[in-house]
Amino acid sequence: MPAIHAARRTTLRAKAAALGLDAFLVTDVLNIRYLTGFTGSNAALLVGTASEEATVFCTDGRYVTQSSEQVADLERVIDRPCDLALITRAAGGVIGFEGDAVSVNGHAELLHAAGESVALQAVSYLVEDLRAVKDAGEIELLRQACAVADTGLEDLLSAGELRPGRTEREVSLDLDERMRRLGAEDVAFETIVAAGANSAIPHHRPTVSVINTGDFVKIDFGARFAGYHSDMTRTFVMGEPADWQREVYDVVSAAQEAGRLACMPGSACTEVDAVARQVIENAGYGEFYLHGLGHGIGLEIHEAPTIGSVSTGIIASDMVVTVEPGIYLPGRGGVRIEDSGVVRPGGYELLTLTTKDLVVL
Amino acid sequence: MPAIHAARRTTLRAKAAALGLDAFLVTDVLNIRYLTGFTGSNAALLVGTASEEATVFCTDGRYVTQSSEQVADLERVIDRPCDLALITRAAGGVIGFEGDAVSVNGHAELLHAAGESVALQAVSYLVEDLRAVKDAGEIELLRQACAVADTGLEDLLSAGELRPGRTEREVSLDLDERMRRLGAEDVAFETIVAAGANSAIPHHRPTVSVINTGDFVKIDFGARFAGYHSDMTRTFVMGEPADWQREVYDVVSAAQEAGRLACMPGSACTEVDAVARQVIENAGYGEFYLHGLGHGIGLEIHEAPTIGSVSTGIIASDMVVTVEPGIYLPGRGGVRIEDSGVVRPGGYELLTLTTKDLVVL
Repeated sequence: MPAIHAARRTTLRAKAAALGLDAFLVTDVLNIRYLTGFTGSNAALLVGTASEEATVFCTDGRYVTQSSEQVADLERVIDRPCDLALITRAAGGVIGFEGDAVSVNGHAELLHAAGESVALQAVSYLVEDLRAVKDAGEIELLRQACAVADTGLEDLLSAGELRPGRTEREVSLDLDERMRRLGAEDVAFETIVAAGANSAIPHHRPTVSVINTGDFVKIDFGARFAGYHSDMTRTFVMGEPADWQREVYDVVSAAQEAGRLACMPGSACTEVDAVARQVIENAGYGEFYLHGLGHGIGLEIHEAPTIGSVSTGIIASDMVVTVEPGIYLPGRGGVRIEDSGVVRPGGYELLTLTTKDLVVL
Repeated sequence: MPAIHAARRTTLRAKAAALGLDAFLVTDVLNIRYLTGFTGSNAALLVGTASEEATVFCTDGRYVTQSSEQVADLERVIDRPCDLALITRAAGGVIGFEGDAVSVNGHAELLHAAGESVALQAVSYLVEDLRAVKDAGEIELLRQACAVADTGLEDLLSAGELRPGRTEREVSLDLDERMRRLGAEDVAFETIVAAGANSAIPHHRPTVSVINTGDFVKIDFGARFAGYHSDMTRTFVMGEPADWQREVYDVVSAAQEAGRLACMPGSACTEVDAVARQVIENAGYGEFYLHGLGHGIGLEIHEAPTIGSVSTGIIASDMVVTVEPGIYLPGRGGVRIEDSGVVRPGGYELLTLTTKDLVVL
């Protein structure tokens, strides 16, 4: 997709120019991937504000061939450290850099390497904000990442492998293998399988705890596909649910639906969070839901926007975000229901398609 | 192992005091794990130089229970952002921070949050240098991480699943699953399976390329066990080796042995690198070996020391390092042979025990 990368650089160039920058030095490898298509682990990119011709890519000797294929449309330098190699080539003026990606020591080295005609300026979220709104190609990759997760879970269930007697760890390994065999590059993050009282721990790591009849089993997982991450949570009951389990599940389900319905372009992230949170608070479970409602997904499993009670952003069309309220009753069990979906003018388009009805196994 | 963590903090405290620091703020999560045993994803640690009582740990609300178990021996604060929560509690004086872990923006926030009586000072490698020399408990965990990798590879071979007709990706998935089922928390890094001409690419990612008779197949992989990483490379020949394959293999094998023998306490990293490199250069293959000889392993897959032609360090007893020379003939194929082992007064003690004889499959 070289055309799309050039288009992204054009957008970035306009934003950098509006900040008065003569060039912008990109050192975050995922931002570089977004702007160039390069998938290696070490690179830097100097985006000249004046023109595409003033833009230079650098990587090290391991990636000569790979970069010649992936970044054929840009001037390339093979050298390391890449950031220093590019800063010494800067013609002068004000060079922006990523204030969250460059360390204090790295900044000192940049200052030392830069010529006296260069002024360095920390800039925040310039590329991250572009990345928050997905283009059609990215949405298709996210759709595929979600489909692999859906199918992996469906396979696990239809094989009867989510059942009492297995350990959390056995189930997580099993699900992960299914996703990898279905084409996932890897899992999107460490899969959570949390049974019984463990399901009340929001980010429990799978253990050798055995799944028992009567347990809630909360599974939070995703697949990485062509660099893009899916994220989904489903909570099951092993055997006939108790009344308290059905009640908690219904409240979370209602909150999740309210959150999805509130995910409209133009809504403040705090509003979307509040709509879902209100459902849980009205049901009397507010104290058992202590995390935010959702987050963007893309080249990272957590990226802009953050949908929470203290977020500052606005939801925009073509953002891809999770909606994931939960209720966690310490010592008893918890429920989280999470989808990944696209914010559209007509509403939240689901990318994770697994049923959210209470599945009794 | 609370005693070991307290002992590590005592050592760190002495180093910090020697630098004139009143306290040292640790924000790298692996350094925090090393110093406290905490395995969560978000924390900060303020090590007071005066005493253990002047040391405070901070994590966020997700880790209340986990931190009360893992960090029971320290004063704990639950707040976020953790680094800012701790800097506001600093009594004053010179506070060191990790110059490679703190970003330019993070530093500005620290400055803003710190009281006027606090001076911030960037420090490099304070904990990383401690981590380079392993204690007995760490060496046992590394031994287990290596054993999982050895057994995983042995299982793959004895099952006949490294064979012509399979793709690189099938073999890598297969090997990864075996390691996970043998108790690896995860793979140590993305497994490299590189067949035929791909084996000449030092860091090839597995593709749908099919393994053919006559190919070199280079497999570089490892397991993560209790946070510790193993790293091993073996190169196989599919069918009877050609003369050039046997020759290249023998040269790399001799270089690898020379490197292991040179890994003695007190040797300069550059010397160790040079000894192995000389073997390859003497055989006329110098231009086809362009990377360093090895690196430390531990809580990270690459950590101090770096054993290369421009390294600055000295090899010390109880460091655990890789020795991994290679020869890569573009378009034809390559060989790398890599062990993980412990530097001992009597020599390099292998942790990876798989044979390095040329295995013909």
